[in-house]
Amino acid sequence: MQLSDIGELSLLKTIRRRFGKKSKGIIVGIGDDAAVIKPQGKNTLITTDMMVEGIHFDISLITPYQLGFKLVSVNVSDIYAMGGTPQYLLLDIAMNKNTEESFVARFFDGLRDSMRIYDVSLIGGDISSSKKDMVVSASLIGYAEKPVKRSGARPGDKIYVTGNLGDSACGLEVLKKAVPIKNSPSLTLPPRGGGMGRGDNSELQIIISKLSKLCLTWNTVKPLLKRHLMPIARNPKDFVKHATAMIDLSDGLFIDLSRLCDESRVGARIYIKHIPVSGQMKKASAELKTDPVKLATSGGEDYELLFTAPPHPPIPPLLRGGVGGVKITCIGEITKKGRVAVDKHGKESAFKAEGYQHYGIQR
Amino acid sequence: MQLSDIGELSLLKTIRRRFGKKSKGIIVGIGDDAAVIKPQGKNTLITTDMMVEGIHFDISLITPYQLGFKLVSVNVSDIYAMGGTPQYLLLDIAMNKNTEESFVARFFDGLRDSMRIYDVSLIGGDISSSKKDMVVSASLIGYAEKPVKRSGARPGDKIYVTGNLGDSACGLEVLKKAVPIKNSPSLTLPPRGGGMGRGDNSELQIIISKLSKLCLTWNTVKPLLKRHLMPIARNPKDFVKHATAMIDLSDGLFIDLSRLCDESRVGARIYIKHIPVSGQMKKASAELKTDPVKLATSGGEDYELLFTAPPHPPIPPLLRGGVGGVKITCIGEITKKGRVAVDKHGKESAFKAEGYQHYGIQR
Repeated sequence: MQLSDIGELSLLKTIRRRFGKKSKGIIVGIGDDAAVIKPQGKNTLITTDMMVEGIHFDISLITPYQLGFKLVSVNVSDIYAMGGTPQYLLLDIAMNKNTEESFVARFFDGLRDSMRIYDVSLIGGDISSSKKDMVVSASLIGYAEKPVKRSGARPGDKIYVTGNLGDSACGLEVLKKAVPIKNSPSLTLPPRGGGMGRGDNSELQIIISKLSKLCLTWNTVKPLLKRHLMPIARNPKDFVKHATAMIDLSDGLFIDLSRLCDESRVGARIYIKHIPVSGQMKKASAELKTDPVKLATSGGEDYELLFTAPPHPPIPPLLRGGVGGVKITCIGEITKKGRVAVDKHGKESAFKAEGYQHYGIQR
Repeated sequence: MQLSDIGELSLLKTIRRRFGKKSKGIIVGIGDDAAVIKPQGKNTLITTDMMVEGIHFDISLITPYQLGFKLVSVNVSDIYAMGGTPQYLLLDIAMNKNTEESFVARFFDGLRDSMRIYDVSLIGGDISSSKKDMVVSASLIGYAEKPVKRSGARPGDKIYVTGNLGDSACGLEVLKKAVPIKNSPSLTLPPRGGGMGRGDNSELQIIISKLSKLCLTWNTVKPLLKRHLMPIARNPKDFVKHATAMIDLSDGLFIDLSRLCDESRVGARIYIKHIPVSGQMKKASAELKTDPVKLATSGGEDYELLFTAPPHPPIPPLLRGGVGGVKITCIGEITKKGRVAVDKHGKESAFKAEGYQHYGIQR
């Protein structure tokens, strides 16, 4: 069954049945000209992020479930980066009419599971079609009593990041460099059933089972693939009161830190040896002959938070976010001007706003 | 100069320079992870509408200025259809990297002029790229003290529409059936300068000058093209207090009225002879050998409002909307059940939810 056998109205009915349950604050949900919500908190936050086939994702390297899951996470990451609480999602989808119904159903499964993690409700959107490439876009509304902007960093502030950097970019390299071969057993897969526990493992296996053998174990690639295909956004609620400025790392550390510096009119000094990277990323990048520092500084799609805070009190290294604990690492400090990276030998050099940019310019 | 020569960061800077001026209620505008606004009124409204190249528009039949203009109007129409006031816009664009800078500049000119008409501010969005087809999408936030839903119609209510129906669909037929011929003078163009007054005339001429001669005058096709390419959304503020239910006509009278009936769990009786159609539409549809009734009932993209109101007091036929006066016509009444169209001979027949549906099903 393809979308052309179902039609827009019937798809809309299915979505309403699955997502139409009203939750707190929703006056009018899916199915009217606009959604109506009760504003909450002193400030309303709104963000939007679009994912375009062939640009943001390759449908042979991500499952529909993962695509739905990730779309929610990347938008939540923006609301978290303002110190906000996400609440309501609007979804725009434009899919080819030959898209299989099962693809759409799994996309919505991923969307639903991700929304549950963040306690977000679907309140509306727009169903469209596309001639060829698929486009999915979401707008997410939230609130914050005291939003944290990019512009609040002051010289002397410490620079912190959550989690590890470069895992997602390395996961993408694993996917891209491993050539799909039919019937080829890939990596060392964990035994089915035993010890997996989480349902998302099977989603990761769907992708990895399409790939040829790499000299890497499942335990090495799994966290990298997971960070790339099904990232969990970092909830800053336990450190947000200390943050003077914050941004989420979507295009790469150097470019996103440069953005924060631009807005705050300050400089930054980063210590490369302090940038947190995972053992798995180091192992996989060696196998893939990729520079782990480059992945960690300009790889993009980390969806970790970078924030600045005064040196006192120091931020404890491990805090509990909304979803599990998250590591916090101090990687440098805010200066009056300049953008300096200090390498492991203590040598200083200027870093540029390098990372992902649309329209093919890497600066 | 193409987008690939400019890059995303530079495009973003241009957008910020043009649209970054803060207006009332905007705490954080373009350039942070999320926009921050002060909630206004008792209810926040939000809607989103996507326009996909090859599906919603053909780039040879619409100018970039018109595309930007229309994107705002179609979203405003949804906020108006809830009885709301539009305020803040978020824009998602995914354009091919070979897109000319001048195309993008004109798109933003159209966006700006349309936003001015409705007093809407750009507060954020997402710049992306696409492999081939362009996708533009907007999310619009507004507020309403008392939103008008689709579900409030009651048997005995009268059914009203604003403006004329079918002009937009007929305008599209003019564009589609007129074959583009190089150097062919098209239609009877008005003299340059004299008597045109409004800047948008030149935009309509850009499109029509690409088309071959039709046996129609400029005065006939102009309002049709304008309604299709640069629709103005109808502000219901002068009749909203009477409305029990409302919807904007985007996919066609029959399908959109059916949606309102579904939500209100009522039926409807429509008198074909009372459906307001323009003289220009009748003339052009005769020349194009197209059924004017079909255009008016299932053509779509009218962006007129359909609303229901108790029979007393009757709605005066001409009201001043936010932008010029707008005609109001009673076209039928809400019944307990059934969907009935009465033709000019008094013959009754059931109407179906016919109109535009994505994924190729016309029901």
